[in-house]
Amino acid sequence: MASRTQVITLTTDFGLRDHYVAAMKGVILGICPAVRIVDVTHEVSSYEVAEAAFLISQTWPYYPKRTVHVVVVDPGVGSMRRPIIAELDGQRFIAPDNGVLTPILTREGVKVRHITASAYFRETVSATFHGRDIFAPVAAHIASGVSPAKVGSRIEDYLRLTFGRPARTARRGWTGAILHVDHFGNIVTNFSIGDFPHIATGPFEFAVGFRTVEKLAHNYAEMPAGELFAIVGSSGYVEISANQGSAAKILGCETGAPVELRLF
Amino acid sequence: MASRTQVITLTTDFGLRDHYVAAMKGVILGICPAVRIVDVTHEVSSYEVAEAAFLISQTWPYYPKRTVHVVVVDPGVGSMRRPIIAELDGQRFIAPDNGVLTPILTREGVKVRHITASAYFRETVSATFHGRDIFAPVAAHIASGVSPAKVGSRIEDYLRLTFGRPARTARRGWTGAILHVDHFGNIVTNFSIGDFPHIATGPFEFAVGFRTVEKLAHNYAEMPAGELFAIVGSSGYVEISANQGSAAKILGCETGAPVELRLF
Amino acid sequence: MASRTQVITLTTDFGLRDHYVAAMKGVILGICPAVRIVDVTHEVSSYEVAEAAFLISQTWPYYPKRTVHVVVVDPGVGSMRRPIIAELDGQRFIAPDNGVLTPILTREGVKVRHITASAYFRETVSATFHGRDIFAPVAAHIASGVSPAKVGSRIEDYLRLTFGRPARTARRGWTGAILHVDHFGNIVTNFSIGDFPHIATGPFEFAVGFRTVEKLAHNYAEMPAGELFAIVGSSGYVEISANQGSAAKILGCETGAPVELRLF
Repeated sequence: MASRTQVITLTTDFGLRDHYVAAMKGVILGICPAVRIVDVTHEVSSYEVAEAAFLISQTWPYYPKRTVHVVVVDPGVGSMRRPIIAELDGQRFIAPDNGVLTPILTREGVKVRHITASAYFRETVSATFHGRDIFAPVAAHIASGVSPAKVGSRIEDYLRLTFGRPARTARRGWTGAILHVDHFGNIVTNFSIGDFPHIATGPFEFAVGFRTVEKLAHNYAEMPAGELFAIVGSSGYVEISANQGSAAKILGCETGAPVELRLF
Repeated sequence: MASRTQVITLTTDFGLRDHYVAAMKGVILGICPAVRIVDVTHEVSSYEVAEAAFLISQTWPYYPKRTVHVVVVDPGVGSMRRPIIAELDGQRFIAPDNGVLTPILTREGVKVRHITASAYFRETVSATFHGRDIFAPVAAHIASGVSPAKVGSRIEDYLRLTFGRPARTARRGWTGAILHVDHFGNIVTNFSIGDFPHIATGPFEFAVGFRTVEKLAHNYAEMPAGELFAIVGSSGYVEISANQGSAAKILGCETGAPVELRLF
Repeated sequence: MASRTQVITLTTDFGLRDHYVAAMKGVILGICPAVRIVDVTHEVSSYEVAEAAFLISQTWPYYPKRTVHVVVVDPGVGSMRRPIIAELDGQRFIAPDNGVLTPILTREGVKVRHITASAYFRETVSATFHGRDIFAPVAAHIASGVSPAKVGSRIEDYLRLTFGRPARTARRGWTGAILHVDHFGNIVTNFSIGDFPHIATGPFEFAVGFRTVEKLAHNYAEMPAGELFAIVGSSGYVEISANQGSAAKILGCETGAPVELRLF
């Protein structure tokens, strides 16, 4: 239906100071004038594929069917790495085949295609800006109603990264890692409450940096300002936080650092 | 009318690096696909309710009737603080009841409701992200035409902060404060030209940091580069500025610092 | 046609922390509710007219006909510098007459007008915020279908800046400059591949900072991580880059610094 509102989201490491994002949006609006473009973020750390993968995994479930998500964190731009399109639950994902879509690609029912139909690219494709020349125009054509089957053939050998899941390192001990540190300094660990339901009910100890955390809060406001605690974040992962303070600053921790859990 | 364009504005302290703002937008677009979403800013200093209050007070007068303004600076997320909706001059404001809407709540004719109708929330409400689970979906339903009366009952005991107004401290002297320091380093004081019309006509002296300022400029360009002067800002408040320089850097001043006025 | 989607782009040095951009968008949406507003960037370095000129020159070619580009980097706000509107290739550009549109104003076929019709301004025009009071409402009226001829008369004496082009300094040597350093630390020089086609075919040496660069890459990925090389950027200019590293950090170079080319 022509009156259906289409949404395209953009997730990149292009930053906000340059013309790169605006050039992509111009290309999109030239092809699909009625589309709604939403910025997820353009502040992914340069070339940090795993960070972009986490962010898109936390975003797409809140979008309407038929949304097209474009993720361009692409250290291999201009090389032979393939552009791909994935379909999952009625949504579409367009990105380089470098693992940045891993959280989508590891879900049951996903269908992946290698984008090869250059008819949907810009007429000349630069070696350095596939965001503008390939990903943006293909996304706009898909949003305009072009079927994913038209842009390329199914593949199965797409790249999936193994994002660390917590590993058992003692009878009642696991070693996980920091998935993401957010703007407030909340530390998102890779312990999901689904896999570790005991955290919600029994005594536990998280060791992060030089400190241990034994308290589980149900909301930030119940804790004294500045004190460290664990909380089940909006992502479903356990986060280490400090009410009205930055847990990451207090602990001096960064993405990738280890997190130890002991259950008692 | 279905063809009427609806606008939702967003003002938060969520920053631009995370998925939080995009998750809110996904929820909004899922409920109200035709709405226009405008970011006021997501760079409010973390938990700075007064700063967000200033920013929304400077923004809403320029928006069309029926706009829905969502302001989420919410140190008490997950606690018992109430979500509220205010109506003023045909516009609507949705925020936590923590004083962030004070400039609207102190205007004559404002109507305020406690948002309680969970039918307009997301199905599961997390303890840490009411922006996504309560404020965004309620705003989208209001923008879609749901009457504010449907989301909760009128209340009168909502929180209003007392933002400092200049206090008389001598026969011809007042002590005010810095309301906001902008991106250019302009210092917005809480001396409004409406309350202090003599600044425009007679001799005066502002004392800020270790310096005094006696000149009133009518525009930046008339002053030599780098020199400090007072000017009536676009907000109607007196600002201390330096042409093509940062007054805040020259004076080493921050939001909240005192500003003395003497009239002669 | 009413159903035609109109686009307005915004390029400013207003930053993202304040209410300035949102006030402009409110004014625009009040006049032209159906317009699509795209941010090019609001992170132009304060008052850097040349930087804004580069960014808009790299953006507008990707936009559809009838787009209205608003560029507000305006050290002279409130002075007698004129607001202007330029028409080129079916697109429109609104800015102060301070040279910020130079890349458009130096193109053949451009038509320029001095904006004087205050009927299209906001009712009261502040001395400090013409973005909100003049540029935004005029852009919205133009996007709504008002003819540029209605807002002012043709002028020919508009300001054009002379952006440095490389100068010949030896029989086989030229001295150019750094046009822009992007978010990734790529150094955009003012050597265009159109003017210097030999770079693509023969041996050359660029001297930047204390280093020389002799290699031309066709894409980032073919080079070892961290090594400096030249590459023809998406802008058509030669860039000095480092695969997965910041060439600007390695070389300690900033916008405006000299770049020497020798051909052999």
